[in-house]
Amino acid sequence: MIQMTLIQIDNYGPWTVTPRPRNESDLQILQAELYADLERQFANKKGLVFFTRFDNLLAVTNGIDEEDHLRIQRSIRNRYPITISMGVGAAETPHEAQKLATIALQKEGGAQSSKRKEILAIDSLAPADEDNLVQAAHIDINSVTETLTDIESAFDTNFMVNKAQHYLMTKLIKKGALLFFIGGDNFMAPCNGLSEKDIEDILVEINDEIGIGLKAGIGIGRNMEDAAYMADLGLEEIREHDNGMWTWVIEKEY
Amino acid sequence: MIQMTLIQIDNYGPWTVTPRPRNESDLQILQAELYADLERQFANKKGLVFFTRFDNLLAVTNGIDEEDHLRIQRSIRNRYPITISMGVGAAETPHEAQKLATIALQKEGGAQSSKRKEILAIDSLAPADEDNLVQAAHIDINSVTETLTDIESAFDTNFMVNKAQHYLMTKLIKKGALLFFIGGDNFMAPCNGLSEKDIEDILVEINDEIGIGLKAGIGIGRNMEDAAYMADLGLEEIREHDNGMWTWVIEKEY
Amino acid sequence: MIQMTLIQIDNYGPWTVTPRPRNESDLQILQAELYADLERQFANKKGLVFFTRFDNLLAVTNGIDEEDHLRIQRSIRNRYPITISMGVGAAETPHEAQKLATIALQKEGGAQSSKRKEILAIDSLAPADEDNLVQAAHIDINSVTETLTDIESAFDTNFMVNKAQHYLMTKLIKKGALLFFIGGDNFMAPCNGLSEKDIEDILVEINDEIGIGLKAGIGIGRNMEDAAYMADLGLEEIREHDNGMWTWVIEKEY
Amino acid sequence: MIQMTLIQIDNYGPWTVTPRPRNESDLQILQAELYADLERQFANKKGLVFFTRFDNLLAVTNGIDEEDHLRIQRSIRNRYPITISMGVGAAETPHEAQKLATIALQKEGGAQSSKRKEILAIDSLAPADEDNLVQAAHIDINSVTETLTDIESAFDTNFMVNKAQHYLMTKLIKKGALLFFIGGDNFMAPCNGLSEKDIEDILVEINDEIGIGLKAGIGIGRNMEDAAYMADLGLEEIREHDNGMWTWVIEKEY
Repeated sequence: MIQMTLIQIDNYGPWTVTPRPRNESDLQILQAELYADLERQFANKKGLVFFTRFDNLLAVTNGIDEEDHLRIQRSIRNRYPITISMGVGAAETPHEAQKLATIALQKEGGAQSSKRKEILAIDSLAPADEDNLVQAAHIDINSVTETLTDIESAFDTNFMVNKAQHYLMTKLIKKGALLFFIGGDNFMAPCNGLSEKDIEDILVEINDEIGIGLKAGIGIGRNMEDAAYMADLGLEEIREHDNGMWTWVIEKEY
Repeated sequence: MIQMTLIQIDNYGPWTVTPRPRNESDLQILQAELYADLERQFANKKGLVFFTRFDNLLAVTNGIDEEDHLRIQRSIRNRYPITISMGVGAAETPHEAQKLATIALQKEGGAQSSKRKEILAIDSLAPADEDNLVQAAHIDINSVTETLTDIESAFDTNFMVNKAQHYLMTKLIKKGALLFFIGGDNFMAPCNGLSEKDIEDILVEINDEIGIGLKAGIGIGRNMEDAAYMADLGLEEIREHDNGMWTWVIEKEY
Repeated sequence: MIQMTLIQIDNYGPWTVTPRPRNESDLQILQAELYADLERQFANKKGLVFFTRFDNLLAVTNGIDEEDHLRIQRSIRNRYPITISMGVGAAETPHEAQKLATIALQKEGGAQSSKRKEILAIDSLAPADEDNLVQAAHIDINSVTETLTDIESAFDTNFMVNKAQHYLMTKLIKKGALLFFIGGDNFMAPCNGLSEKDIEDILVEINDEIGIGLKAGIGIGRNMEDAAYMADLGLEEIREHDNGMWTWVIEKEY
Repeated sequence: MIQMTLIQIDNYGPWTVTPRPRNESDLQILQAELYADLERQFANKKGLVFFTRFDNLLAVTNGIDEEDHLRIQRSIRNRYPITISMGVGAAETPHEAQKLATIALQKEGGAQSSKRKEILAIDSLAPADEDNLVQAAHIDINSVTETLTDIESAFDTNFMVNKAQHYLMTKLIKKGALLFFIGGDNFMAPCNGLSEKDIEDILVEINDEIGIGLKAGIGIGRNMEDAAYMADLGLEEIREHDNGMWTWVIEKEY
């Protein structure tokens, strides 16, 4: 079982234009700092937050309980001009888990309801034990510096990375997996339920369709931190083999 | 003329895995804080930075000169474990401007060259005066809360927003414009050289092709801050007219 | 037993002037952000850090173990241009605990030794259980807004607060307690081993000697967070009694 | 003429205990981040902020005008749960300048008035030109690492530094100068109107009275950034002469 948390800024849209539009730079700073802050707090408990849409963030949170979530909400209220609500769900696939988390929160009121504030809606929790593993793939583009960054314009490289992201999302979502951009040419895909072959097939398809070569380190562990780190080590293995394979799986031993 | 700056973390890829992969959460925090920091510094001079790929960031920087750029580089060196190089270019279209900025920087060495460090490569500058205006469109999705956030799962909404982004990027880039995601359902498109009709045509096409309704406030000013604020006011106008038009242009009077 | 951690930036003095003096504003930002960052990480484990000298920080860390400390060191290394070393000690009084922590770290090399880097020197640890309580007093100045802030100049008020701090430090240190300024007119004194009468005597003496009226909420708990919160509640009790007593003690029930 | 700004968090005391005391760690983080943020924004205009009491901060702001102050207030409102009011004054001595700034703000309402919010009260401004210079002394303790940090306990060293601070403040305030702790064993004293001899006399007196050896680099420039940097260079000169003199003055040439 993978556990996911949806974090949503309460009534954020209206706030950004009241009484008149706030400076875009201030909003960008606020969003980036809120993300960094949430990352720090969830990471302290071995979770990992993805920036997603910045006003709606998704996190893998195996092993993080109700009290931990409440503490984070309180801490945000004390330091930001906004508050956050959260939904939590656990399921066999990441897509199902975030769906349960979303439904639990939606039941408590709309994202722009001025009445809903600092809700914590827990559908279900998955403890961090040997029966509840997280699987995540760290995917990057082969030789992006040589083939893109150092020869194409910065925006064209960015466009290619976004294209890879869009194709990856489209294919992974069909199998119940998710895909988040984590900077550079890197993506992280929580992917419980997918086999190594499933992932390889997707990478091969994308290479055939749009000519972008990808590789995936796949990690398995009792929490997202461990899974992500195993995935990183998997990527390193592929690099040491001169990108000679599409995937490399490592499961953490406890 | 629009002036753009490419900001690139020096030799970042190798750093992230030396001597072994650094914790993903630490990298996410570092990247988000660096972005917030750069935003703060460029915004103080009325520029605007987009997070882009986080290790490569693009900014609209009309009115920001060599000394300002050097000061920002110095400030980053004093507070982060990494340094940044920058390229600057000015041109009639944003795409051409960032291309000149990229080429200027690429000439000084590769992004992963251990020899290149804290370069400031200026191809050309555009002063903030009446002859050098920035045009930017603030684009969002009509009624995203009602049609997506409050009824779809968080990731499915995110997927739709990413899809809109990918279609917008694909179409805008062909006309020399750029497109950046700025959170929620919002995009900012530096778009010097495009007419209101050009932008409307793109929004209509996307509505026809993927059924996502968009609108665009278009702002014009002597720097990015002013252009973005005018664009925000344009968006507000459309909202007040119940999304009855695709676009609304406002040029700042000085 | 109270457990204290000394956090020391490695070789910081020389770094601030190499190759020439770094901008004072950058150093101030770096120091404040490092402090906020450490606070966040130790607070997540129910400790509390005091800014002290900014390059040497003291924290009460009951219940925070070796692995926790190592994780924090790693996290700082990944996001700052400097690294930190730490010493940890546990004793019957706060003064003795920080002394053990200091000695443990001093044994590993000087603060400006270029060879000492990221040391964690543990003299002793105190677990967070019923036999290892933290006692802390939250002390503030009676009616500071009415008697100082709103009628004296800002610096003169600051001077009076600093004077109170100096007198409090001088008297508390003799009894094995510590005193940290925490902003406004507030001080926090880790004070295991002092009776309520000891603290009242000190406040009475200061009132007699320099005419500054103080009060102290005293809290007792299994970790610094709990002790500080009980102390806050104690202060609130005194306020509700119109500052009618010098001290109020609350021990947390588990 | 030196210009000083008093920055005051509006109605902060009551906020910290409403509806019940907020976690001390959250308040510490909030205060440190607000300080870092203000520092960044004033430093961008060549000013320098001192943390002072954290809820009341003093800054030297020569060359920073009304529009700059308003922009900073707006930016804080957009990103923090609190707002700030400011008073600004210019005079021949720093003490007089901050007094004018304080009075201007006090006239608008008390620090804990729930009605006063985001006031900018300007008594007077001093432009950054050749007739309006800032003089500042950067004072530190001779050989603090060898004589204190590496041999005394961390708190005892901190106590000695605080003692030096208290003596310096007491003597400087009588001559119209201010003194701020800036971390480590460092102090910054805005000191327009004092001669080099005045400062030397104070250092000699302190050495005689409490046996703490100090030195002072004294800088003069058109804004605080330049004055502080010249003071840093002065300190370096004294170090290169093996602390063979008490003071060293450098005036920036434009």
